Amino acid sequence: MYPIQFDKLKEECGVIGIYGPEIENISQLAYFGLHALQHRGQESAGIAVNKDGKITYYKEMGLVQEVFSDTVIQRLQGDIAIGHVRYSTTGESFVTNAQPLVVHYKGGAIALGHNGNLVNANQIREELEDHGVIFQTSIDSEVIANLIARYNAMPIDEAIQKALSRIRGSYALVITHGQKLIGVRDPNGLRPLCLGKIEGGYVLASESCAFNVLNAEFVRDIDAGEMVIIEENKVRSIRYAEERKALCSFEFVYFARPDSIMDGQSVYLSRRNAGRILAQEYPVEADMVIAVPDSGTVAAIGFAEESKIPFGEGLIKNRYVGRTFIQPDQKMRELSVRLKLNVLKENIKGKRLVLIDDSIVRGTTSRRIVDLLKAAGAKEVHVRVCSPPVKFSCYFGIDTPTRKNLVGAVNSIEEIRQMIGADSLGYLSIEGLMKSIHIDGQGLCNACFSGDYPMEVPKEGNKFLFEKR
Amino acid sequence: MYPIQFDKLKEECGVIGIYGPEIENISQLAYFGLHALQHRGQESAGIAVNKDGKITYYKEMGLVQEVFSDTVIQRLQGDIAIGHVRYSTTGESFVTNAQPLVVHYKGGAIALGHNGNLVNANQIREELEDHGVIFQTSIDSEVIANLIARYNAMPIDEAIQKALSRIRGSYALVITHGQKLIGVRDPNGLRPLCLGKIEGGYVLASESCAFNVLNAEFVRDIDAGEMVIIEENKVRSIRYAEERKALCSFEFVYFARPDSIMDGQSVYLSRRNAGRILAQEYPVEADMVIAVPDSGTVAAIGFAEESKIPFGEGLIKNRYVGRTFIQPDQKMRELSVRLKLNVLKENIKGKRLVLIDDSIVRGTTSRRIVDLLKAAGAKEVHVRVCSPPVKFSCYFGIDTPTRKNLVGAVNSIEEIRQMIGADSLGYLSIEGLMKSIHIDGQGLCNACFSGDYPMEVPKEGNKFLFEKR
Amino acid sequence: MYPIQFDKLKEECGVIGIYGPEIENISQLAYFGLHALQHRGQESAGIAVNKDGKITYYKEMGLVQEVFSDTVIQRLQGDIAIGHVRYSTTGESFVTNAQPLVVHYKGGAIALGHNGNLVNANQIREELEDHGVIFQTSIDSEVIANLIARYNAMPIDEAIQKALSRIRGSYALVITHGQKLIGVRDPNGLRPLCLGKIEGGYVLASESCAFNVLNAEFVRDIDAGEMVIIEENKVRSIRYAEERKALCSFEFVYFARPDSIMDGQSVYLSRRNAGRILAQEYPVEADMVIAVPDSGTVAAIGFAEESKIPFGEGLIKNRYVGRTFIQPDQKMRELSVRLKLNVLKENIKGKRLVLIDDSIVRGTTSRRIVDLLKAAGAKEVHVRVCSPPVKFSCYFGIDTPTRKNLVGAVNSIEEIRQMIGADSLGYLSIEGLMKSIHIDGQGLCNACFSGDYPMEVPKEGNKFLFEKR
Amino acid sequence: MYPIQFDKLKEECGVIGIYGPEIENISQLAYFGLHALQHRGQESAGIAVNKDGKITYYKEMGLVQEVFSDTVIQRLQGDIAIGHVRYSTTGESFVTNAQPLVVHYKGGAIALGHNGNLVNANQIREELEDHGVIFQTSIDSEVIANLIARYNAMPIDEAIQKALSRIRGSYALVITHGQKLIGVRDPNGLRPLCLGKIEGGYVLASESCAFNVLNAEFVRDIDAGEMVIIEENKVRSIRYAEERKALCSFEFVYFARPDSIMDGQSVYLSRRNAGRILAQEYPVEADMVIAVPDSGTVAAIGFAEESKIPFGEGLIKNRYVGRTFIQPDQKMRELSVRLKLNVLKENIKGKRLVLIDDSIVRGTTSRRIVDLLKAAGAKEVHVRVCSPPVKFSCYFGIDTPTRKNLVGAVNSIEEIRQMIGADSLGYLSIEGLMKSIHIDGQGLCNACFSGDYPMEVPKEGNKFLFEKR
Repeated sequence: MYPIQFDKLKEECGVIGIYGPEIENISQLAYFGLHALQHRGQESAGIAVNKDGKITYYKEMGLVQEVFSDTVIQRLQGDIAIGHVRYSTTGESFVTNAQPLVVHYKGGAIALGHNGNLVNANQIREELEDHGVIFQTSIDSEVIANLIARYNAMPIDEAIQKALSRIRGSYALVITHGQKLIGVRDPNGLRPLCLGKIEGGYVLASESCAFNVLNAEFVRDIDAGEMVIIEENKVRSIRYAEERKALCSFEFVYFARPDSIMDGQSVYLSRRNAGRILAQEYPVEADMVIAVPDSGTVAAIGFAEESKIPFGEGLIKNRYVGRTFIQPDQKMRELSVRLKLNVLKENIKGKRLVLIDDSIVRGTTSRRIVDLLKAAGAKEVHVRVCSPPVKFSCYFGIDTPTRKNLVGAVNSIEEIRQMIGADSLGYLSIEGLMKSIHIDGQGLCNACFSGDYPMEVPKEGNKFLFEKR
Repeated sequence: MYPIQFDKLKEECGVIGIYGPEIENISQLAYFGLHALQHRGQESAGIAVNKDGKITYYKEMGLVQEVFSDTVIQRLQGDIAIGHVRYSTTGESFVTNAQPLVVHYKGGAIALGHNGNLVNANQIREELEDHGVIFQTSIDSEVIANLIARYNAMPIDEAIQKALSRIRGSYALVITHGQKLIGVRDPNGLRPLCLGKIEGGYVLASESCAFNVLNAEFVRDIDAGEMVIIEENKVRSIRYAEERKALCSFEFVYFARPDSIMDGQSVYLSRRNAGRILAQEYPVEADMVIAVPDSGTVAAIGFAEESKIPFGEGLIKNRYVGRTFIQPDQKMRELSVRLKLNVLKENIKGKRLVLIDDSIVRGTTSRRIVDLLKAAGAKEVHVRVCSPPVKFSCYFGIDTPTRKNLVGAVNSIEEIRQMIGADSLGYLSIEGLMKSIHIDGQGLCNACFSGDYPMEVPKEGNKFLFEKR
Repeated sequence: MYPIQFDKLKEECGVIGIYGPEIENISQLAYFGLHALQHRGQESAGIAVNKDGKITYYKEMGLVQEVFSDTVIQRLQGDIAIGHVRYSTTGESFVTNAQPLVVHYKGGAIALGHNGNLVNANQIREELEDHGVIFQTSIDSEVIANLIARYNAMPIDEAIQKALSRIRGSYALVITHGQKLIGVRDPNGLRPLCLGKIEGGYVLASESCAFNVLNAEFVRDIDAGEMVIIEENKVRSIRYAEERKALCSFEFVYFARPDSIMDGQSVYLSRRNAGRILAQEYPVEADMVIAVPDSGTVAAIGFAEESKIPFGEGLIKNRYVGRTFIQPDQKMRELSVRLKLNVLKENIKGKRLVLIDDSIVRGTTSRRIVDLLKAAGAKEVHVRVCSPPVKFSCYFGIDTPTRKNLVGAVNSIEEIRQMIGADSLGYLSIEGLMKSIHIDGQGLCNACFSGDYPMEVPKEGNKFLFEKR
Repeated sequence: MYPIQFDKLKEECGVIGIYGPEIENISQLAYFGLHALQHRGQESAGIAVNKDGKITYYKEMGLVQEVFSDTVIQRLQGDIAIGHVRYSTTGESFVTNAQPLVVHYKGGAIALGHNGNLVNANQIREELEDHGVIFQTSIDSEVIANLIARYNAMPIDEAIQKALSRIRGSYALVITHGQKLIGVRDPNGLRPLCLGKIEGGYVLASESCAFNVLNAEFVRDIDAGEMVIIEENKVRSIRYAEERKALCSFEFVYFARPDSIMDGQSVYLSRRNAGRILAQEYPVEADMVIAVPDSGTVAAIGFAEESKIPFGEGLIKNRYVGRTFIQPDQKMRELSVRLKLNVLKENIKGKRLVLIDDSIVRGTTSRRIVDLLKAAGAKEVHVRVCSPPVKFSCYFGIDTPTRKNLVGAVNSIEEIRQMIGADSLGYLSIEGLMKSIHIDGQGLCNACFSGDYPMEVPKEGNKFLFEKR
């Protein structure tokens, strides 16, 4: 199966947790919740259910709706469920690395789902291996599970805190053990996690968009450095570390669904803000604002509002593009953009266009889109990007190319403009992006744009060291 | 697999034909072309290739990208290819009914792909059966193939014309036989078919949107009552019947992709026109125009332009909704709308909304969407529908419910408004729709709205007589 | 999937028919019956059920137990069922050619399953095509169905008789139409068909071994030239042609299961007889009689009894050998015998062996087996074959290689002995084989050994003309 | 998929290991080897290859030929391969428990395949869990891997010896790590393991029957208490424990393929011996000796030889019986024997039969077979069983029912005779069985017959404690 891919960064995971001893078919709720988080990972999906401390699970490669059948869902009976969707960063991907991870230890059975990336995973692995620990996967969850098991003499919540004190990096965790559903967000809150209320229980999810399908009420975001323990239908909160909030700003740029709210900000509104600020920062005379669908659409509406240039559609997306069994050959490779996008000639012919894209990573797709528009008769194509140039690798759960493949890291804006064939090119400033998200621009990680990491990170090239060994 | 369906009419088929003895991998082109026509039928897909009169083919249930693998495409070598995607109107659907239909007869091998529906198919079947003919499928193509075979003494183009003189109804046909690719459009031109030019050959397709992915140049629409014969890399035209143009107006309302051009009119522009005219016909005071995505979006932009009420997004669609292995139980059935759509609360709260939908068939989905918007805080929801009430069954290839299930056939506008819980409701007039498509409003079939059929049709209930027997 | 094949001729089909309006789950009975006939065809399987003249069916590529699931069987509800297993003689095989064939014609719906091969199928096809008939498959059943449909003005049993008067070749047919289950055997009775009684109905089957699993009582063989019509729980017999019995003797040599009885003779006993007669015809001094398992085992026991040389096992078969996803490469091709057979060294070392095989077609496998035995220490290997040399092509439903690939057609016995490396080689005489089956040696076809065909046959090379065109 | 099962004990695993840096496609050899061991486990299959210490692997539920495709085998490139087939003893079985187990630890990557069962696994698990170890599977291999990892400071062979000093029970292990292939057999040699030589390397296998397909030469059995280390194309032997040989005698009764040689004894010959001794111990006047195919056939030949009663076939097995998608309903459950076996009426009618079976576990199948024979006209049926009554649970890798379900544990011979409806019943004595295997009857475990376990075992009911927790 060959994915038809665009030039976008990839989120690695989404998690969900549902507490509800009185809910029938809790695994079905987990299924629907995962379905709403499908955009966060399309490679594998898994659900584990906990019935009186006994955990059963199912995980496979594929989309949520491919992995789970009625039969499987029926077999997953329990009081608590956790679920996970994953996009793998390694070339080859196996079901071994699918999550949730389910293990037995001194304290019983435990299931973990993890969104994020630990920067000191290899170091801890080595230490653990020095003590004779074996590893069966290349996922960080196995490191975390081993740490928790080390402290099996303590109650589970203390054991988890002990484990957390050892790890550094980004993590939004959902864990189930005994009668508990536990959610954890790292001290920087790099990856999102929020809490919702359903009839008869509670929900934890990477994004609030999962709540609607479950008819759940949004309660609040989990704080950075907070652990919540849901038991006996009550939520208990433990602050296990000082909050140094640095939520990933790329969640707002591209990853999250626009109908999610993260740390108090609507993703939709932040994108519209970004479009508006971009119109202020890089104004242009033009006849129509169009978007690279779908990710550029919201910002394009904002840009149009601010610039008073009318919003229109210039590119139509094929809704059925997904994976294909046909490998486009050399000559057909350029097809990938055409398979996905088509120009509305009659709507753009002779017009000066503003083309809004959410981000540019390698630049390959942008060139092809500008070409298509020009070939269809666009008089001018002014590219406006709703995020700053991506210049630095992410170490917190986003799959970024090495720096030499980041067009923004090795080229000037003018060079990029020429490469993609645009008449003008403007990127949103870092300040602009920050302001588009939070009025004070605080509490966000913008390291992929600025190189200003919220913690010490490994040197370039060591990012996925373990996975490659 | 349980489809997650909305309240929409269903197109039955899409066809493609590619002539290109000098083109390598002609089946791959057919694959990409079918992929662009996927919206016209998601149930089965098939490709037949013709090499010196010998035809090989492959067809299966599923989406184009599920049905065809590299291996299969490699095996389909030929000079001419035809392809077909199908949505079945019967409850149970089997691969037997997938197309293209490939048969052997006196004249050799022939492959046919058909989009449309014959109104006298049963009558001809009976006549043929009187002469001892057997039928192995319930598709009209088998009737057509039998008719052609009757006239095997004539050259193929004459045999086809003889066959056409017998059938009534809607048909866009692609046929390959010998060294020829043949395209036919019925005398009313009820279903679309157009001709494109590629390097080394020609393309026939239900919609022009398939041309772009193939880098084909749009040449022209096939006329109503015209047959084109492509051979020796030349296109020959035969007018086999008088043109009484009545192109299906629902193609513009919903079926066709907005980036297609049909009989000279851009689908995109016709939809924007429809939105504009609707704004004139049913103006309303409101704060924002939103669409039921994706089909209402273009008209919503038109409505916004005309009414000067700003366009915005109020509903977000889950891009991964398709078929699911999980059967929503009674209690979860209402989920189907939520699985697909989510409200952008923060963008609509306290606002008076105009909600643009392309059409209302049964009305079930509309009610749920209005409920969602109101529950999310919308102050008012004014529903505007970009087509007239659907009141009559289609006999020309569209799957319409029986009249008693058509909300527009048995209720007044006010009753529908109350049913769906809208603050006001306005449907585009038939005249408005006609004008939105063609400036003079001519050459269109609007029978599903007006009952004014372009030819005599069977009595209600007999529509799919054969399929049910 | 790569079959691991031995040097054997291939039967083309097996059929079953079950009449039982009062039987619940008639399709399940058909399933179990087909399962017992699996040895007659492993490529595709199908079942059609008839409920008040309405026929539903399911057929797919694969073994019976792969094709049918509980869900499919549940959907196949009816009063009468017919089933079919098929081995295809053409290189590429498609589900299109799977049986039963289900068609609609003037007389209603009809389903046919056919075991055999018509020698004048192409001629009739051409005649039918002259009259405008189309063909969608390359199976003879389609010819028969068309002929029946020609005579739709007559009652079905007369129409079938009319059709039968046109065809020549071998056929055991099961047909269902209206309230009837019909069985037909060709005037030579080349292919077997027998009748059984179950509680609440009747069974028709290619072999009586299918009766046991259904708890059916064997009633009798259908006569050559007989048609039976089962209706209102009664069996009516029509002799539509004079009997010129010539049952395929290879059924006894290899195809049929030893626990079947055909035309009054136990397949098991005929094989034991063959072994005994062979011992008389080609006696040898040796220490042990061993068989090529499993097909040579029964004859080996007979040979041992007659010769007083003890029977033993020298070759062990891997019970799990079937199809494999691994394509044995050039170097590994010789593995195929080893994958399937293993020598019992300790049981044969230093011994003079009589190796009993049922038949030799190309001779490739025999050479490898003799080599294995010698390498394991056998002092002598005397090959005895329980059938005469295969010298002529079969036109009646058996897949024989062209004559130049039949080792017996182009080589003397001595040449074959040298080729396979045996110390001596003896083939059963034609008379011996005939006597092993029927005490008077009458009523059998032995054309593949003698060239004495029971009817005129096409010239070599035209056997599967239609399939190859 | 519903297995069509007989009343037999189930072996749990088979292992293979191939050393061959100069062999191309080593994974293909492992595949063919596993294929020959398929009878030892049909539920899952796996292969791990080691290239310079880096291990890649693939394992899935299913038969060897279902699990591995050309593509998968091509991806498994290495110098050393180990493979495993498994039959699971727990009701639900998951790919998680498939083997080989591949883990990373301080010493690098290691892969293990295990045939057997540890009696102190739970105790060690608990100790390890006390030290914070997590377990992801319920297989003993994970315990062994953890023990090895504990001793990572030592060279691998010493670490393994240290680990072995902790475990008790049965184990035949194949391990690959670094440049080494290692084979281990437990101090009692309960499970078999042998060494073969191939061009360019060595082979380890559960049974010697795997050597033939690989064209490998049998070298010797691994001794009880021996570890062999294959490196630099040399075999080094370490005796890590004193030999107290107690090879499972049921390997000879049923599990092993007759063409294997174990600890110097041909399985085929031991079975023939068993038949002969049985004829001495329980002589009977009869007309024919028949076997329950295939497992009783060899002994039946022996019985016939000794008793001078002729050997014949009375039961024919359907070669295609395997798993089915159709769940036999209550009424059809009795079908299972009929689906698999058919009586040769004409060969047994009126005869006094000796029916040879290898063993009787629950007795359910025996009753049905005797019924079938009697219904087919057998005058008398004298059942002779080539092993003593199974009275005790096995703790060394065989799946035995609890004692109350062992017909031999709770009933007298006469009671069993009545239950199964036989005219007489004789079981081979323990001494007879021992002698049939080894002339001196030494070095064998016969605990399932005698209760005389070669080591201390857990109390009844705790056998699969861990798997059930």
